[in-house]
Amino acid sequence: MTPLLTDLRVVEVSAFIAAPLGGMTLAQLGAEVIRIDPLGGNVDYRRWPLNETGESLYWASLNKGKRSVAIAMNRPEGQEIARALITAGGDGHGILLTNLPAKGWLDYDVLRRERADLIMLQLTGNPDGSTAVDYTINCASGFPYATGASEEPVNHVVPVWDVAAGLYMATGLLAAERHRARTGMGQKISLSLADVMLATVSNLGFTAEVEVNGQGRRPLGNDLYGAYGHDFATRDGRRVMVVAISNRHWRALGTATGLAERLAMIGPMMDVDLATEGGRFEGRHAISAVLSPWFAARALDEVREALEGTGVLWGAYQDFEQLVAEDARFSTANPLFQRVDHHGIGPFTTPGTPLGFGAVPRQTLTGAPRLGSATEAVLADILKLPSHEIARLVDQGVVAV
Amino acid sequence: MTPLLTDLRVVEVSAFIAAPLGGMTLAQLGAEVIRIDPLGGNVDYRRWPLNETGESLYWASLNKGKRSVAIAMNRPEGQEIARALITAGGDGHGILLTNLPAKGWLDYDVLRRERADLIMLQLTGNPDGSTAVDYTINCASGFPYATGASEEPVNHVVPVWDVAAGLYMATGLLAAERHRARTGMGQKISLSLADVMLATVSNLGFTAEVEVNGQGRRPLGNDLYGAYGHDFATRDGRRVMVVAISNRHWRALGTATGLAERLAMIGPMMDVDLATEGGRFEGRHAISAVLSPWFAARALDEVREALEGTGVLWGAYQDFEQLVAEDARFSTANPLFQRVDHHGIGPFTTPGTPLGFGAVPRQTLTGAPRLGSATEAVLADILKLPSHEIARLVDQGVVAV
Repeated sequence: MTPLLTDLRVVEVSAFIAAPLGGMTLAQLGAEVIRIDPLGGNVDYRRWPLNETGESLYWASLNKGKRSVAIAMNRPEGQEIARALITAGGDGHGILLTNLPAKGWLDYDVLRRERADLIMLQLTGNPDGSTAVDYTINCASGFPYATGASEEPVNHVVPVWDVAAGLYMATGLLAAERHRARTGMGQKISLSLADVMLATVSNLGFTAEVEVNGQGRRPLGNDLYGAYGHDFATRDGRRVMVVAISNRHWRALGTATGLAERLAMIGPMMDVDLATEGGRFEGRHAISAVLSPWFAARALDEVREALEGTGVLWGAYQDFEQLVAEDARFSTANPLFQRVDHHGIGPFTTPGTPLGFGAVPRQTLTGAPRLGSATEAVLADILKLPSHEIARLVDQGVVAV
Repeated sequence: MTPLLTDLRVVEVSAFIAAPLGGMTLAQLGAEVIRIDPLGGNVDYRRWPLNETGESLYWASLNKGKRSVAIAMNRPEGQEIARALITAGGDGHGILLTNLPAKGWLDYDVLRRERADLIMLQLTGNPDGSTAVDYTINCASGFPYATGASEEPVNHVVPVWDVAAGLYMATGLLAAERHRARTGMGQKISLSLADVMLATVSNLGFTAEVEVNGQGRRPLGNDLYGAYGHDFATRDGRRVMVVAISNRHWRALGTATGLAERLAMIGPMMDVDLATEGGRFEGRHAISAVLSPWFAARALDEVREALEGTGVLWGAYQDFEQLVAEDARFSTANPLFQRVDHHGIGPFTTPGTPLGFGAVPRQTLTGAPRLGSATEAVLADILKLPSHEIARLVDQGVVAV
């Protein structure tokens, strides 16, 4: 079978989350992604969490399905080989993805001397090119001061800006490659983590709220802004999130809990219109007060039985261990997942792309490569280096296999 | 000038965040995106926050640069018009993006009778097609139990799974359109919010940590896992986030604060190797104890002066109001932003795509359309309906202009 992204080759010189996720996203759609690393691995190669033998579960999870080439990029001869790899090949090739400073041998104008239609996407921390990471961008986003229930800032744990940047990278490269296929033109694409954050905060209306209404969002605990949403404790010590956005959700909640009549009393009592999202938001504390004993009287299984199939929007909170142990969606019964044996680590449940394409079957998944495991094949196949020359480069420490 | 995504037309039948963001992402790269809504607007049309006249800042922010067509999709004649729009046109057309149930007239097999190479991406809540929203997916992700400092779950406020799903949609549609341009084949693409969450949690190593090491991540407050990161109060009541991932960051922190010698005492005192990320994580409480008085003795401006340009990774916390008022990156000095006058709302600072493409200039940005403002032009230009026929459809309440 043909993969979806036939004849697309991306060279990645990257570290940490965003750029590796960008490359992996394209690899999962069938692109050939070659990650070039320094001989001992890049700065993310031993990033926590590690297994008991010191292999990084983080690196293994963010580099699945790539080919690994190890080159001493701090030496001119290594830089020459890397540059040749980046600029080699035909129509769908000549694409570079990096979060390294694009200067010296990685400068776009230097690289495009070798290939005029090169597409290069460079991720920086700030729009001015200065360094930043998800944590030093997130503190500026406003979200920590709107998270939790107190006035103290609370950091997110999911690296939102890295994840979004990685997906913008995949989108941007596909858009630029489409443009190149039609016009013959390559280009440099710039993206900063800060701009991803700023665009997203604005796209969600948070900055317009300040500019237009003169006030920023305040922390609401686990409540939902502008509609009804609240978390409840169950009798057996679990918690659930319950949401009613549309009138249909709201009616379903009253019916399924048998509390519709009592909930209806809140309208006149609080002088709010419970037939609107905004009215339910304004009356949320009274709504939660009526619903709370219902959940407290039931174990999670009883809540599930009472709400499932009723049209009520709800979900159970899980920690990571419960997610792995109890959630049926986290299993090979879900076509997203396959059991993959990872180099140096062993088997664990491994996702492919969440996109299910009707025209091509799901790929058989592979783990992250052993560092340098594709060096020999790539130098031979793409750069046409003879085996004695590859042996010389290995001997002299220019590449590792 | 030619936009990047020349001749790409996407029809969007959507609501809320993910699907509208997917469409807007493509519109910002130059695609023609036609959002079809019911006559009075879809369920997200009055979503909070609202301005004083009841216009939604949320809707305005998530639908910028689209064309709006209003059709009574609950009537057979309306469905016929919508179907004709979805399937009309040439090579880069015939692309549908939706988060509505794809049944009845929106069923893929029904639609492709009109256009065999249709590309349709449907977003659902769960992989089995059942409904879920960001809040009822997030509670299952494990992150709320790892956020904050207590054992209670803390919801994120940024709708991570919606944002990631929107960006996966843009990536998936571009990949499928590339495939169609090469093979002539259309396809249905399925994506669920739950799969986006599950894939991301796994891609970041959180589930492998449970499966391989037998333990899930616990809450760490605002600290960073596996390296050094902590937030500090300043003398003037602000807070800053400080991070040291590489050894270079770590040395810069000691030098800039003048505390290198005292920080070095932590190694033998705590029996940790401060030349490693893991050692700094293990010694983090002692590190924070040494650094804390340095920040408490300085106002934010003094911290900035002492740290800027030193290679220390740090950032100031801001709430949304401070982001708008104080952050120089949130201004039209940053090419990401333009001042746009939004229909019914007025001007506010508005981002385009965070991707900066060297081959095409930044677009002149526009706001979200007035509902139905493109109905007449689209029916005339794409469906070639004569003006008297459009007038009849308006009179009979099948479309609105």
